[in-house]
Amino acid sequence: MNTKQNRIGSTPQSGMRDFTPQEVQLRDWATAVIARTYEQFGFTRIETPCLENLALLRRGDGGENLQLIFEVLKRGDKLEKVLAEALESNVQPQKLADMGLRFDLTVPLVRFYANNQASLPNPFRALQIGSVWRAERPQQGRFRQFTQCDIDILGVKSEFAEIELLSASAQALTALGFEGFTIYVNDRRLLADIVKYCGFEEEAFAGVFIALDKLDKIGLEGVCKELSAQGQPMAAIAELGSLLLEFAGQEKDLLAFVCAKVQADTEIQSGLRNILDVVSAQSQGRFAVKLDPSLVRGMGYYTGPIFEIKYPGYSYSIAGGGRYDKMVGKLSGRDVPACGFSLGFERIVGILQEKQICPAPNYEKLALIYDSGRDCLSMVMAAATRLRQDGWAVVMQQRKKDLKKQIDLLPAQGINKLCLFRGAIEQLEIANVQFSSSNND
Amino acid sequence: MNTKQNRIGSTPQSGMRDFTPQEVQLRDWATAVIARTYEQFGFTRIETPCLENLALLRRGDGGENLQLIFEVLKRGDKLEKVLAEALESNVQPQKLADMGLRFDLTVPLVRFYANNQASLPNPFRALQIGSVWRAERPQQGRFRQFTQCDIDILGVKSEFAEIELLSASAQALTALGFEGFTIYVNDRRLLADIVKYCGFEEEAFAGVFIALDKLDKIGLEGVCKELSAQGQPMAAIAELGSLLLEFAGQEKDLLAFVCAKVQADTEIQSGLRNILDVVSAQSQGRFAVKLDPSLVRGMGYYTGPIFEIKYPGYSYSIAGGGRYDKMVGKLSGRDVPACGFSLGFERIVGILQEKQICPAPNYEKLALIYDSGRDCLSMVMAAATRLRQDGWAVVMQQRKKDLKKQIDLLPAQGINKLCLFRGAIEQLEIANVQFSSSNND
Repeated sequence: MNTKQNRIGSTPQSGMRDFTPQEVQLRDWATAVIARTYEQFGFTRIETPCLENLALLRRGDGGENLQLIFEVLKRGDKLEKVLAEALESNVQPQKLADMGLRFDLTVPLVRFYANNQASLPNPFRALQIGSVWRAERPQQGRFRQFTQCDIDILGVKSEFAEIELLSASAQALTALGFEGFTIYVNDRRLLADIVKYCGFEEEAFAGVFIALDKLDKIGLEGVCKELSAQGQPMAAIAELGSLLLEFAGQEKDLLAFVCAKVQADTEIQSGLRNILDVVSAQSQGRFAVKLDPSLVRGMGYYTGPIFEIKYPGYSYSIAGGGRYDKMVGKLSGRDVPACGFSLGFERIVGILQEKQICPAPNYEKLALIYDSGRDCLSMVMAAATRLRQDGWAVVMQQRKKDLKKQIDLLPAQGINKLCLFRGAIEQLEIANVQFSSSNND
Repeated sequence: MNTKQNRIGSTPQSGMRDFTPQEVQLRDWATAVIARTYEQFGFTRIETPCLENLALLRRGDGGENLQLIFEVLKRGDKLEKVLAEALESNVQPQKLADMGLRFDLTVPLVRFYANNQASLPNPFRALQIGSVWRAERPQQGRFRQFTQCDIDILGVKSEFAEIELLSASAQALTALGFEGFTIYVNDRRLLADIVKYCGFEEEAFAGVFIALDKLDKIGLEGVCKELSAQGQPMAAIAELGSLLLEFAGQEKDLLAFVCAKVQADTEIQSGLRNILDVVSAQSQGRFAVKLDPSLVRGMGYYTGPIFEIKYPGYSYSIAGGGRYDKMVGKLSGRDVPACGFSLGFERIVGILQEKQICPAPNYEKLALIYDSGRDCLSMVMAAATRLRQDGWAVVMQQRKKDLKKQIDLLPAQGINKLCLFRGAIEQLEIANVQFSSSNND
């Protein structure tokens, strides 16, 4: 994996990656485990094109992602027309492109739903695993093409959708070998109640959310400084600070405490209560579910419960999502309650790599070594077919002069078994590579 | 699936497709069958980014595909610089873009090989399954984003590479349920010998190949007309016509006949002989392998044996490939013998759909219907967990007023089993949907 740029050399483009066979094997395994788990929860995979109408992409509530769209140049007559116009006045860059590479899987899902709703069950449980592209400034751990893994439930108003998303995702993480993670839950409406209670003006909420979203990175002091820099009233900032400290010190039933304090709607409280209780009940000690009243989640489109998952030892979240009841209506004209959750696929694969988790391959690999000067190729192929029918992956190799060296190179190719062809299909003896490597036939 | 264009509606962009759950299930199954078969032949999956350096894409020998690249607009300062220059003179369209979406998987493979060669086995057997993009004029059956499925062997000079590619691909097609297909084989060098024998000038070979490539579509008469329109000598055209008829009438050992006739190199003959014999020997009557001395294959980069597969009842080929010994050197500076084969994934999936092949899902689906007013959600979830542990995919549904209608809607969702939650995890009774649909609990 090499992300260094060069002019027209052999490295991938900046921020993009080649995946070697070992890397693909791990990614494919993780994808299969996740997909099979979600399937068991009734989610079905859909796929959409990687290119979408630029106007559609820009119409979404994608926040800063809208600045990061890779745009596709118009072609043929359309491009010529724009360039001809440019001779008379300045070129308008926004007229040069007509499509863009998707920056997430949510905008395409909403378009897909509007396009295919008639043939989809209601509620619709969608699973998407696919590449997205963002023209980020390249840096360590930030990629310009990466895999997203999203589940969404469209058509369910109640918190039952959240419960399904979280249960299925916790199960998927467990199936990947993750234990001891924590699901943090909040509700955008509760967050608004808290901020309102502190005395911030309604117009300032968005700014307060942006500052609060950095709590993990810059700490409470940093948040207060940023709010002060925004020109927020000192009294409200002080109130928020002391409230968050009070929440942090609360050991029993934080939800009841927070809701009583800020006089949150009982509907919000009972929804969160249900999520916390029902998801916890399935954990059997493998993960925790907690209210985090300071959780924000960046995206502007969330309207209700929000959540993210953290794994001990890693500062970033490995999954996150929330309810976005207004977004389908915004794009399709008809409101449909919706709720989604995204596993941070690249982060999860990164942790699996650090843990040196190496999934078992589908087949054990065997080298079938034959003498190209002596053996009949059709007979060697027939022997390979026999071995494949017995469940082996068979790599055929012509015997080289230095057989010992040839055998010593096998383990690096993931091959740990060996069969030296001895002229007849009846004489296929399989040996371990280690054992055979000192035996020069 | 709807490829109709509209301005910013919900349909995909022209020539691109949404895939519904049923479609994805078939595509995923076909992908898995193909991948597992190729794995058993020792091929390992790699992945490359979808975007490549435009100059690299253009440097490849991609023929008309070079005209079909979707180009990605430069961003930020680089774009501003180009546009600023444009104020002084015309905009040069080729300066507006820096990357392009890959139009095949061969150029990226060659770049990947140059970038990662040190960590790859020699020979290297690569499997790639991924999307490619071509700005084709949209029409029935032509897509602007489609899946390619390629295997390539790098580092093998002998026809053993061809034999492996064809054996593995025939096995993959067989595993998908295809029978009775024919593998047609030729060699670009033999083709050149034939054309030379007829009396065409060496400079005219490319033009003759282009005309001959249309034999399937326009017939021998059409080919002769086109050659005549090209201004080729009538004597050579007549000779080619009679030679092809002579070949077509040859019943026994066409290879020996053709090679003797045009005095082909013995190396070409023995290579093709080996391919025909060894691949045939594995067929067990499920497919045929034949020499087609008029086979051309469009791409300019082929240097030796070429092949394609046809399936009875379909005029187009469902797979094709060949040897391209010069391409790695052209891009990386060091010649490496190489040979590749591509399954026409979209065509194969299209035929599977026409044959109404519907793969078995990973799990059988069951609806767990509960009463949201009565049942404890945690207990329902525990019941679902139990059923999932038993191997079911469980779709949880709140019981609706009209239970019969709710049950009648299940089959359309791929659900054929039903469990009505009766308040306790010990009382999980699974019924067939048909049976229960008349039973209103």
